[in-house]
Amino acid sequence: MEVIVPFSTDRPKSRLSGVLSPDERRGFSRAMLDDVLDAVVAAGGDPRVLATDAVDVDRPVTVDDRPLTEAVNAALDARLGAGGEAGNGDTPEPVAVVMADLALATPAAVERLFAAGQNADVAMAPGRGGGTNAFVASHPEFRVDYHGASYLDHREIASEIGAAFAAVDSQRLGTDVDEPADLAEVLIHGEGRAAAWLREAGFALDASEGRVAVVRE
Amino acid sequence: MEVIVPFSTDRPKSRLSGVLSPDERRGFSRAMLDDVLDAVVAAGGDPRVLATDAVDVDRPVTVDDRPLTEAVNAALDARLGAGGEAGNGDTPEPVAVVMADLALATPAAVERLFAAGQNADVAMAPGRGGGTNAFVASHPEFRVDYHGASYLDHREIASEIGAAFAAVDSQRLGTDVDEPADLAEVLIHGEGRAAAWLREAGFALDASEGRVAVVRE
Repeated sequence: MEVIVPFSTDRPKSRLSGVLSPDERRGFSRAMLDDVLDAVVAAGGDPRVLATDAVDVDRPVTVDDRPLTEAVNAALDARLGAGGEAGNGDTPEPVAVVMADLALATPAAVERLFAAGQNADVAMAPGRGGGTNAFVASHPEFRVDYHGASYLDHREIASEIGAAFAAVDSQRLGTDVDEPADLAEVLIHGEGRAAAWLREAGFALDASEGRVAVVRE
Repeated sequence: MEVIVPFSTDRPKSRLSGVLSPDERRGFSRAMLDDVLDAVVAAGGDPRVLATDAVDVDRPVTVDDRPLTEAVNAALDARLGAGGEAGNGDTPEPVAVVMADLALATPAAVERLFAAGQNADVAMAPGRGGGTNAFVASHPEFRVDYHGASYLDHREIASEIGAAFAAVDSQRLGTDVDEPADLAEVLIHGEGRAAAWLREAGFALDASEGRVAVVRE
């Protein structure tokens, strides 16, 4: 299955600016991207990076500097059928879109996403706070709108076009790394480059009060 | 499978005190408990409430006013074998412990926990922030310690006693409702009494800025 991985090369992860410098945010974002690409490949997917600018990565890259929603919809147009009409009336091949900041993604979690996408027209892993972290779509008319509570909007879109919808219940796919509190999740559960990057940068878990936080040495 | 559901009748959900009165916190906690009990029963489990004081619920109740760790370990002693020794050398029947504030729990999510517990000595669903939201154990020596980053501690305990460990990757089981931000998850994904309780109390989603929050009318 082709898996589109949107990646912003421009001021990535601004909500981590309180704990990481601009250069560090670029390095950490890249480590997360590499983890996601590894998990997708290990799950049998064919990843393609959808980047806002050129990125040096050992996978196919499409550069599209439009906002996320438009860039992803252009990719869906090209795969599921332009203008919501499949060219030949057949069900299109499923295509996945998996965000580049899912630093906890494992092959097993991505495999569950793929499997759900075989049994539904739209299978989706919600992020914390109502976001859309990953989905598989095979319905020719499904398009995205990433603004606001996009998970609820996407369920509504699927309903409107008569697409069978399945939710994928995964904490690993549901954890997008945006805020300092999310870094604790990477240190607790991460097994790849992003977790190693954080440890190398001096981050450690601090369990001294209630929910675990991170501290930097 | 017997499923122990710890429930605090004493000042429940204090971290929601900024948005809910003491009476409201009691009502909301009870709605979450009922949702968890429903999901356990629908998944084929036999729930038993492990409460700090008497609670009027249509399920078996054990009252134990000790702190959570001690009360759960007493229950594990009674089921898995006292002092870490199974009475007859056989592998004990698996027993589950599922927290009462998992308002997003569904039968399917609980079934995945049960299934994981058939294939491992300890199967565990981590909560956000390193907590332990639900587990199944059949190893006679497994005991809990809920302080701090308990998920990591429990993995370590399992390793020390030679118990095969499996993580259960579920956002529904991973979402314990402790803080105001967690209420948004209930409104987005909840299908039971807790979500209805919040709506009745005037809570609604507010997607006007980035991650979805809740507002109260």
